[in-house]
Amino acid sequence: MNAPAQGATLPFRCAMAVRWRDLDAFNHVNNAMFLSYVEEARLLWMRTVDGHGLYADAAPVVAATHMNYRRQIGWPNELAIELLAERIGTTSLTVAHRIVRADDASVLYGDGNAVVVWIGGDGRPVALPGPIRMAAGGG
Amino acid sequence: MNAPAQGATLPFRCAMAVRWRDLDAFNHVNNAMFLSYVEEARLLWMRTVDGHGLYADAAPVVAATHMNYRRQIGWPNELAIELLAERIGTTSLTVAHRIVRADDASVLYGDGNAVVVWIGGDGRPVALPGPIRMAAGGG
Amino acid sequence: MNAPAQGATLPFRCAMAVRWRDLDAFNHVNNAMFLSYVEEARLLWMRTVDGHGLYADAAPVVAATHMNYRRQIGWPNELAIELLAERIGTTSLTVAHRIVRADDASVLYGDGNAVVVWIGGDGRPVALPGPIRMAAGGG
Amino acid sequence: MNAPAQGATLPFRCAMAVRWRDLDAFNHVNNAMFLSYVEEARLLWMRTVDGHGLYADAAPVVAATHMNYRRQIGWPNELAIELLAERIGTTSLTVAHRIVRADDASVLYGDGNAVVVWIGGDGRPVALPGPIRMAAGGG
Repeated sequence: MNAPAQGATLPFRCAMAVRWRDLDAFNHVNNAMFLSYVEEARLLWMRTVDGHGLYADAAPVVAATHMNYRRQIGWPNELAIELLAERIGTTSLTVAHRIVRADDASVLYGDGNAVVVWIGGDGRPVALPGPIRMAAGGG
Repeated sequence: MNAPAQGATLPFRCAMAVRWRDLDAFNHVNNAMFLSYVEEARLLWMRTVDGHGLYADAAPVVAATHMNYRRQIGWPNELAIELLAERIGTTSLTVAHRIVRADDASVLYGDGNAVVVWIGGDGRPVALPGPIRMAAGGG
Repeated sequence: MNAPAQGATLPFRCAMAVRWRDLDAFNHVNNAMFLSYVEEARLLWMRTVDGHGLYADAAPVVAATHMNYRRQIGWPNELAIELLAERIGTTSLTVAHRIVRADDASVLYGDGNAVVVWIGGDGRPVALPGPIRMAAGGG
Repeated sequence: MNAPAQGATLPFRCAMAVRWRDLDAFNHVNNAMFLSYVEEARLLWMRTVDGHGLYADAAPVVAATHMNYRRQIGWPNELAIELLAERIGTTSLTVAHRIVRADDASVLYGDGNAVVVWIGGDGRPVALPGPIRMAAGGG
């Protein structure tokens, strides 16, 4: 896993099996769970990057999230999460996310983005780590 | 609870005790949990509204959420969630949310908003229910 | 799905992908999550049973759970959940559960059981529904 | 917090506000959540103990849990969690737990116990740390 694999470059896609406990009392997947789904995808993507996104002097934190809820999700269900580099900034990476049906990506359950920054020991943003910039497609 | 209490009108504020399980492996409250905190506040607010926000022909669903993560939250901790009517539309209510320290609301952990719509039996948005419009301050 | 498939009969086995959010601040899967894993397996099993375990006059509730934690579970990880009918009583079904490595069932992460009863409209246990008894191997 | 307060000695009691997200699709608090409630209480208790239960050469892990589900829990709701030292062994502490109504401890929602062991760097149980033994009432 040390060398960036081809899959390391965004876009990234992974499968996600809905669990019954993801449902809330309205019997559909809870809105906060959508963020957990896309977080799982981001972390699986980061694992394909040199250093796994965690560096001696830089750890990733989420600065903002946005989610549009397009359709309710029931159980059981097989989803796919799709990630795309929306903006590669000096100190932040905006990752667009889409939650779709596993076997038909035209069925969209949710979309939006997450802004991720890497912070140093003093809690302040540092320049985007090189392996992340590269894996995001920022050269 | 049948008559709208004074507290029924937005702004609304409630306490929130952080649980250890709200932390993730980075040892701070997980980003998705921020949405659960503000959801809890919205539902507690709705309970103060006539009909509790649930009507024979109209049930609330979240259409969009936005959250800015301003500070990491540790455990144990006592928070307060503050809600404000940001926009009262024809078929949607945008609720601004702030997550602050319980004993010092100037310490901001997160802020953003959630767009809530009420849908009918056919799954399509209906006009904002009267009690909700009134409790949100929309007259 | 109306006719009990061969898989409907206990023992039952299903896959379970660990999610990063299943970890707690100690960086291993939280103890309560073990119960969610085996719950998911029970519900997937019930879906293979006539009526999906939910009947007009009888709904399942968990009466007791027991879990032994044998090994810590890290992320990412592919598990398998195994269920076995441990005891088929007049009004309760005791389902033994095992959480193992997906590709090597000899690696045991947790085991124990859950006692499930079906309750009627008055909240009191009723006789084990016929399809459940049959699918559990109780003839 | 360095000196064991009176509250440090088991029995221990804390409040627990049910959150709407604790409910599952059956509209009552999910069975796994009961374990999270008692875990929160154990950790709050440990925080009152010298060293907070975490030592250079000994970290706590849950070895077994048992829960009886006596009544369904709805939302909103105010609970209390009660802990009692059930057995103080050489290398393990069995903590009995009860989930009751906050304003009427005779209303029992769940009870059972958790076996906690402290493990060293090699992952093997060590002797119960002194501060824990003392705070548990083991002299």
